[in-house]
Amino acid sequence: MLNKLASRTSDISPFYVMELLRRAKQLESQGRDIIHMEIGEPDFPTPQAIIDAAAKSLQTGNIYYTPAAGLPELREKIAAYYQAQHSVTIDQKRIFVTPGASGAFLLALAASVNPGDEFLMADPCYPCNGNFIKLFGGIATALPVDATMGYQLTEGLIRRHWSQSTKGVLIASPSNPTGTLIEPEIFKECIHAVTDKGGCFFSDEIYHGLVYGKQAPTALEFSSNAFVINSFSKYFGMTGWRIGWLIVPDEFVEAIEKLAQNMFIATPTLSQNAALAAFDADTLIELEKRRAEFATRRDFLYDALVQLGFEVPNKPDGAFYIYANCAKFTDDSYQFALDLLEEEGVAVTPGKDFGSHLAHQHLRFAYTTSVGRMAVAVQRLERFINRI
Amino acid sequence: MLNKLASRTSDISPFYVMELLRRAKQLESQGRDIIHMEIGEPDFPTPQAIIDAAAKSLQTGNIYYTPAAGLPELREKIAAYYQAQHSVTIDQKRIFVTPGASGAFLLALAASVNPGDEFLMADPCYPCNGNFIKLFGGIATALPVDATMGYQLTEGLIRRHWSQSTKGVLIASPSNPTGTLIEPEIFKECIHAVTDKGGCFFSDEIYHGLVYGKQAPTALEFSSNAFVINSFSKYFGMTGWRIGWLIVPDEFVEAIEKLAQNMFIATPTLSQNAALAAFDADTLIELEKRRAEFATRRDFLYDALVQLGFEVPNKPDGAFYIYANCAKFTDDSYQFALDLLEEEGVAVTPGKDFGSHLAHQHLRFAYTTSVGRMAVAVQRLERFINRI
Repeated sequence: MLNKLASRTSDISPFYVMELLRRAKQLESQGRDIIHMEIGEPDFPTPQAIIDAAAKSLQTGNIYYTPAAGLPELREKIAAYYQAQHSVTIDQKRIFVTPGASGAFLLALAASVNPGDEFLMADPCYPCNGNFIKLFGGIATALPVDATMGYQLTEGLIRRHWSQSTKGVLIASPSNPTGTLIEPEIFKECIHAVTDKGGCFFSDEIYHGLVYGKQAPTALEFSSNAFVINSFSKYFGMTGWRIGWLIVPDEFVEAIEKLAQNMFIATPTLSQNAALAAFDADTLIELEKRRAEFATRRDFLYDALVQLGFEVPNKPDGAFYIYANCAKFTDDSYQFALDLLEEEGVAVTPGKDFGSHLAHQHLRFAYTTSVGRMAVAVQRLERFINRI
Repeated sequence: MLNKLASRTSDISPFYVMELLRRAKQLESQGRDIIHMEIGEPDFPTPQAIIDAAAKSLQTGNIYYTPAAGLPELREKIAAYYQAQHSVTIDQKRIFVTPGASGAFLLALAASVNPGDEFLMADPCYPCNGNFIKLFGGIATALPVDATMGYQLTEGLIRRHWSQSTKGVLIASPSNPTGTLIEPEIFKECIHAVTDKGGCFFSDEIYHGLVYGKQAPTALEFSSNAFVINSFSKYFGMTGWRIGWLIVPDEFVEAIEKLAQNMFIATPTLSQNAALAAFDADTLIELEKRRAEFATRRDFLYDALVQLGFEVPNKPDGAFYIYANCAKFTDDSYQFALDLLEEEGVAVTPGKDFGSHLAHQHLRFAYTTSVGRMAVAVQRLERFINRI
């Protein structure tokens, strides 16, 4: 009898938060009021102009395949967006519309990971990023980073850990779970260090747009040899549409096109037609209002958590997460999260979903719910920690 | 300097038909009339009830992520469809809604292919199937099959080629490119042979529903240990929506769920809501009309090709393809296809997109265009072969 399950299936860690979600749903079905601060999904609906564009496209009934790389008009709009936002000129042929950032990661890593290749990233970081690497037989080495480094890699760290088998580096800015940005100068140094080594640089920019009071540069400002992964999910409010994009170095264009044809055929047509409206002036005005609301939420939650005694050394500059040190209350943040849910109906994500470095002392709070709801959550949290 | 491109990128063959498509578009932009018989996409628009369901779902604006395995209501409907069509009872937890059959293949193979594992399939077959295996470091061994075997594998072939490193078998029925079905008895023997060996059996059933005058059993009628890959693209007319499904053996449920969360997050929400209407009685009546039209087209094209001197030993029973032997006219079907396009504006797919066994003597004709247009194509084809 063969062992049927591929060995990679045991290398890929489950999301612990799924256990919490399951329990949260159970409690809700029993009539309990649960405040969801575990979810990495904005609570805002998709902007109306995007919905309208989809409705118009629907009426034609012609929802056929698009080219594998995406609708030319959409690739053009993405290029124009980089020109407008970052003053970088990108050849359209380097831009691939993908089924979410997930599709972008799948393509980028299928094209660059040979079995045994090592990739460096930060610990903590979003767990899927490492899992995509493992999927193709690569090794994801997560380097411990802390608040003094803004939870981001540095050139020194990269050079110190670069070995014979290192193939590339992945940086996510704003970071999930910490919401921190990498300093532009350090970002540039990291990219150049990787370029020097002839490695692949992956820049996860899916929280671009959701940055408060600072500017997040794209890796493309520093090098045309970086892979950039981005998404319509977060800033543009299109999570369930599963559409993102990938920008690749010139030498990868042909391979990525071939892989996209084979792996996806194409990105959903309706989502692409809808996304054509994402860059409209009216949509952007609406999205900027939402960004202001996220900033308000961040300020509220940050102040409240610090007040309660959580340590948040870096007030986050982006995304919609606060990664809070809860060592004052527990040395087992997963149990803390389970108990908090059970006793007070507040769902948060345990640190161990994002790595192992000080994971048991951390919790991720998502401010993807209103200030009003968060105020209730904070009261409950206070009651909870006063009991322990 | 590292070699940045992963080696799998050179293992994965390009689609030759893409070259033809590019040229066809060029010619069209010059005003030439091109008849497209190369495309594996039905020309019928998505059925109205499906469009309406999507429109209704759109109006809510709530296009958030669904569970990774898909909407429970949709999984339930898929289970009910198997009950109604095939009298098999499938536990809903074994059914995963996926981003197209592409997503189903990615999941099934990520969960079962270890590097070096060999999988047996027919030559000719759809090229992506082998490429999915290579993506995860597996070896796709395509066994030559011919008309006397209905272009399908047999138990004998499987047993003869099963080696230490063989992990599984893939059968596609109806087959792309040949449109042939595997005989139920042979199908059953193949599945049991693989089960005996403790291997994985993958049944590509994406052309189910598009079968003319026969019944295509599902692998699940013979074993609950088969993987079944299916899609809303072909029979249900939902190509650009990127939605399909995967049914897995019990022991794979947990691993597939974890992989789906990591690789896709979820299948597009709108496509799932739309697909809820795919099994409605009215939709099925419309789809049955289309099936009858495909049968008429098949009969027309089969008769015409045979008349012209192409050899089609097995009149196909399903899908929308005829795999025709053109040895009477050429020993280089790719060049034949290029010249046919250039001189007469008829686009067909060369055999070498489907393998190497007698590939240069074959062309695939898709009857995804009307009888009227095909009649013009046949005239042009006649003129073309009379000149060579």
